[in-house]
Amino acid sequence: AILEAMEGHFARRGGALPLAGKRAIVTSGPTREPIDPVRYLSNASSGRQGVAIAEALSTRGAAVTFITGPAEFARPKGCTIVPVTTALEMERAVAAALPADIAVFAAAVADWGIAEPAPAKLKKDAAGTAPALEFIANPDILAGIAHLPADRRPALVIGFAAETGNLETHARAKLARKGCDWLLANDVSPGTGVFGGADTAILFLAGDSAEDWGALSKAAVGERLAERIAAHLRA
Amino acid sequence: AILEAMEGHFARRGGALPLAGKRAIVTSGPTREPIDPVRYLSNASSGRQGVAIAEALSTRGAAVTFITGPAEFARPKGCTIVPVTTALEMERAVAAALPADIAVFAAAVADWGIAEPAPAKLKKDAAGTAPALEFIANPDILAGIAHLPADRRPALVIGFAAETGNLETHARAKLARKGCDWLLANDVSPGTGVFGGADTAILFLAGDSAEDWGALSKAAVGERLAERIAAHLRA
Repeated sequence: AILEAMEGHFARRGGALPLAGKRAIVTSGPTREPIDPVRYLSNASSGRQGVAIAEALSTRGAAVTFITGPAEFARPKGCTIVPVTTALEMERAVAAALPADIAVFAAAVADWGIAEPAPAKLKKDAAGTAPALEFIANPDILAGIAHLPADRRPALVIGFAAETGNLETHARAKLARKGCDWLLANDVSPGTGVFGGADTAILFLAGDSAEDWGALSKAAVGERLAERIAAHLRA
Repeated sequence: AILEAMEGHFARRGGALPLAGKRAIVTSGPTREPIDPVRYLSNASSGRQGVAIAEALSTRGAAVTFITGPAEFARPKGCTIVPVTTALEMERAVAAALPADIAVFAAAVADWGIAEPAPAKLKKDAAGTAPALEFIANPDILAGIAHLPADRRPALVIGFAAETGNLETHARAKLARKGCDWLLANDVSPGTGVFGGADTAILFLAGDSAEDWGALSKAAVGERLAERIAAHLRA
């Protein structure tokens, strides 16, 4: 925490905030897709990485809209916080937060929702048979923003890839498919402790180049990414 | 909180702890059923009610084993805490905590799990088609304990029913089906705020009798239930 505070201080050194006047959107946490009034489908994203990025951007002067699913970490300092539950709600909140210069999609959005959530709690039948659930694909929020016409598209659209195995292959395919500018890929296999933990390991893709950031804290990822964003927008 | 502390004090007045020497098991929180290493099926149980009951029993001298899924409230004072994730793990933890005099099943156990969780993160195909998920019924922990042979069965087996509509009908059917002694039924319809909230409304069933406890805090439910357990075991 002391190191982070120092980094924040050095970022402001000389009085100039490198991202002053810039608008940023950061999505974070899981989304939660209702099955009935009590059950849902979700994932184990804690929101730590999204909070770290939002705070690092805000510290550098950006006006940050932080759009978060139900997460353990959901209160970045200095940001406008927009709580949502489902992927559809997150998509609408992102659209409402445009225009923006920077959009970082750190949320672990559920790929599928339930076509028609039941209005009352589903009951087990006598045989204990599970109800048939019809899944529908959720909106692809990252690809949607990355493919906006130039006058609406943020200058920098940044995605995350959480993979279990074949990290670079999956991440390169995702970068191409989504149309984003940068992609931060990490390995969330059980045992890595990345989901929910304070530490991670990042493979950073920008166009054709790849950089292995190695193992570092999520706070350090936030600082490093914010520095790089500031440098890119200055260039 | 002051009232609760006073109630706890009065429970101990005269030096005699009414549940001293008794062993209690309390289950609490949701269970989480993995789909793959990052996705899961769960529910919105906060664990507040289970914590309140465990603390009320512990305050009265019971030795409480608190078996909890991943919940917001998961640290009752004075109890032995056993954290679990899935319904299968919860079932094993309950069996390991026997013998007991009192067993209160306040957890919102997932009725279904995924037959074979994927070892790696499931990928969307090009068409965005959802993976086929095969559900299997989870063990019925409450019914399993309620139907143990007399030498293994806790003297008091107490269940909860979370319903949305037709409260008494569903609750009576559940009491009969599970074979438990008492059942506390509450309405968790959206808008009631019961799931996750501090307040609830209880319909208390004991055999053929029913008592409407009306609206009260989850802390008050814990106190009232613990008092009734103590009176029953004294009789």
